[in-house]
Amino acid sequence: MDQAKPLPGYLVGRYNGWKATTYQDNKAWYRRLANHGQHPRAMIISCCDSRQHVTSIFGADEGEFFIHRNIAGLVPPYSPDGGNHGTSATVEYAVTALKVAHIIVIGHSNCGGVKGCDDMCSGKAPQLLEKSSFVGRWMDILRPGYERISHLPDGERGPALEKQAVLVSLENLMTFPFVREAVESELLTLHGLWNDIGEGSLEQYDMPTDAFQPI
Amino acid sequence: MDQAKPLPGYLVGRYNGWKATTYQDNKAWYRRLANHGQHPRAMIISCCDSRQHVTSIFGADEGEFFIHRNIAGLVPPYSPDGGNHGTSATVEYAVTALKVAHIIVIGHSNCGGVKGCDDMCSGKAPQLLEKSSFVGRWMDILRPGYERISHLPDGERGPALEKQAVLVSLENLMTFPFVREAVESELLTLHGLWNDIGEGSLEQYDMPTDAFQPI
Amino acid sequence: MDQAKPLPGYLVGRYNGWKATTYQDNKAWYRRLANHGQHPRAMIISCCDSRQHVTSIFGADEGEFFIHRNIAGLVPPYSPDGGNHGTSATVEYAVTALKVAHIIVIGHSNCGGVKGCDDMCSGKAPQLLEKSSFVGRWMDILRPGYERISHLPDGERGPALEKQAVLVSLENLMTFPFVREAVESELLTLHGLWNDIGEGSLEQYDMPTDAFQPI
Amino acid sequence: MDQAKPLPGYLVGRYNGWKATTYQDNKAWYRRLANHGQHPRAMIISCCDSRQHVTSIFGADEGEFFIHRNIAGLVPPYSPDGGNHGTSATVEYAVTALKVAHIIVIGHSNCGGVKGCDDMCSGKAPQLLEKSSFVGRWMDILRPGYERISHLPDGERGPALEKQAVLVSLENLMTFPFVREAVESELLTLHGLWNDIGEGSLEQYDMPTDAFQPI
Repeated sequence: MDQAKPLPGYLVGRYNGWKATTYQDNKAWYRRLANHGQHPRAMIISCCDSRQHVTSIFGADEGEFFIHRNIAGLVPPYSPDGGNHGTSATVEYAVTALKVAHIIVIGHSNCGGVKGCDDMCSGKAPQLLEKSSFVGRWMDILRPGYERISHLPDGERGPALEKQAVLVSLENLMTFPFVREAVESELLTLHGLWNDIGEGSLEQYDMPTDAFQPI
Repeated sequence: MDQAKPLPGYLVGRYNGWKATTYQDNKAWYRRLANHGQHPRAMIISCCDSRQHVTSIFGADEGEFFIHRNIAGLVPPYSPDGGNHGTSATVEYAVTALKVAHIIVIGHSNCGGVKGCDDMCSGKAPQLLEKSSFVGRWMDILRPGYERISHLPDGERGPALEKQAVLVSLENLMTFPFVREAVESELLTLHGLWNDIGEGSLEQYDMPTDAFQPI
Repeated sequence: MDQAKPLPGYLVGRYNGWKATTYQDNKAWYRRLANHGQHPRAMIISCCDSRQHVTSIFGADEGEFFIHRNIAGLVPPYSPDGGNHGTSATVEYAVTALKVAHIIVIGHSNCGGVKGCDDMCSGKAPQLLEKSSFVGRWMDILRPGYERISHLPDGERGPALEKQAVLVSLENLMTFPFVREAVESELLTLHGLWNDIGEGSLEQYDMPTDAFQPI
Repeated sequence: MDQAKPLPGYLVGRYNGWKATTYQDNKAWYRRLANHGQHPRAMIISCCDSRQHVTSIFGADEGEFFIHRNIAGLVPPYSPDGGNHGTSATVEYAVTALKVAHIIVIGHSNCGGVKGCDDMCSGKAPQLLEKSSFVGRWMDILRPGYERISHLPDGERGPALEKQAVLVSLENLMTFPFVREAVESELLTLHGLWNDIGEGSLEQYDMPTDAFQPI
């Protein structure tokens, strides 16, 4: 590897500070985690967006959540074709190896990936339609959700499509045989959330009303 | 969607506590983030492992790092075949849309995904060789790294293979034309780290010695 | 300009060292900063004192804080009289152009400017009362704070007056219409800190107790 | 004061890290600084811009530089009218109390304040002409510099005006009697620098050629 650079100095400084305080104060817990492995109670699937800190929102400790983050927090449909399916691998590992009790899919406001999908599907971003666009091909997963809200006028589809992203992911999760089996055996529950970054509000998908409701 | 459940009560409680304290005290910052978008300086690629909190290690604030997390923090080679490549989409978005200045790949000790790769490649986990194993097919990405350390005896390949995972990801990053171009234009730097969870230590890949060195 | 001299050699040497190391390793970040502008999350108002390095205390990177430094870190009251108000200009730029989410005012122990104010107000430094004394006229801003602690005996007013400097600045900040509006719209928060240089301790103004409390 | 909020948690964490490492390792030096006062060798006048870290460029230690930072790093002309002149106070304190040996004025590329002056003087930002604009009134200081480069075409005045800001400040410094006296007694030297943020380059004003030359 001929392209790696040293870590920027301010990150070295911050790491040294963490080592001398947080790590030092919690060394027993870190060692226990190293010696006894992880036993997370839940898997969280969220966006890569730098503004989404689910560990902060949920007061999470090291060892508590198995966290997968990708563009828009999407889960593709079950497709065992032998390819490198990163998201499917995380779900398989969480459910079959770690045996998590919950999978929480969380979307958020102002999501750039979802905005890209809206632009692509409504004809405003032809470059995302190209085969070579990884973001475009990834956001294809959300097309079924776009179809369901495409009747909404321009400028009003944002949060609706962000919530569809959560629902599409939950639906796709159920296409994985090991997920369906765990859910049907009542060993796993699925949860859908949407977070408004600016307002700090959290809504969850509510089955009885088939809508997102404030928590 | 007919399978979503309400969020467990203890998470509702923690969220309510966060909303009343952290959010309330930092509302201005959350609103600024919502109104002005994200401007993360770096992308971090790490494992989903529940014991890896890079935001804690680096004293990160909301808005600072664009974070992708998958099994073992792997990046596959460039493959614009029109499929749903989640990891490739995150890299494309970070480099071409967000124009991050750094991509930091961080591996860790006791990595279950890397252990699976070792078992698979050394013949101890034939089930991971099956076409239907998403974890197995994902860990295929690390095979070139396994070949480089396969001469090591059983029980001694762990940290070596975890570090190979970082190097393979860095090498694969350079196969993406937009990554290579940004690196060659000196608009992007790549960094490789490995964290020992129990000891809280951090090592970084050092080009001159072609080895990981303690920070 | 007929009075500029070449930079002292030791500073040229240090700059050359920085250019060959820190800059070289972080060129991508500096270019990103140049190309995409600054998006600082906070404004810091501190003293010019050479012993105050808030970037060190807060592990700050280039691009993170918009920093104004003047004698004692004072903010004068709002006074739109058409004069050259340097501090007011920094606050206006931070709040209305950069839209920072926080303004952090930080005072410190052993502050020479605050000592001058104490001497001036207690009759020990008549020269500071002269119209021609820029330091005296600047420290006039702190007089309302001196009045509040003038009952303390000689030799005990130091840290109390340094903390009053922080409070007077916070109060004056609220006299700027654009600051008040941003605070009331919950788009901006104000913070008051005091740093003991020798002990490395940090105290923050706590509203409930109306006092500075250790962090 | 009824508007102060607690410091954001990530800054508390970083401070605690600094206290446990940098402070702990250098306690003797911090105590010496507290007990024996500051003896900075130079005053630096720079911009508030978050991208300008002169302490980094010059490898500065605590105690080394007395640093004043305002919009564009400007010094107004000598004007002992009894008003609150923050910048004049810093210069007076540095020269008459601290007796620094150097005053270094440093400007930089992509300066928002200088850009504002250019827009104002060329008719593109009428709002900056209003009496109530603190930024506009502050940038009036640079008008004599604008006059000298106003013949340059639009889009080419940027770096030239940034360098004029340095020269105007040096010229204004010489209007302060205590500065002129110290310079003429060879107890003080003035220096003018300009830093290109993206390229990391540094130029200094060179008297013989009456131009900025690379260091």
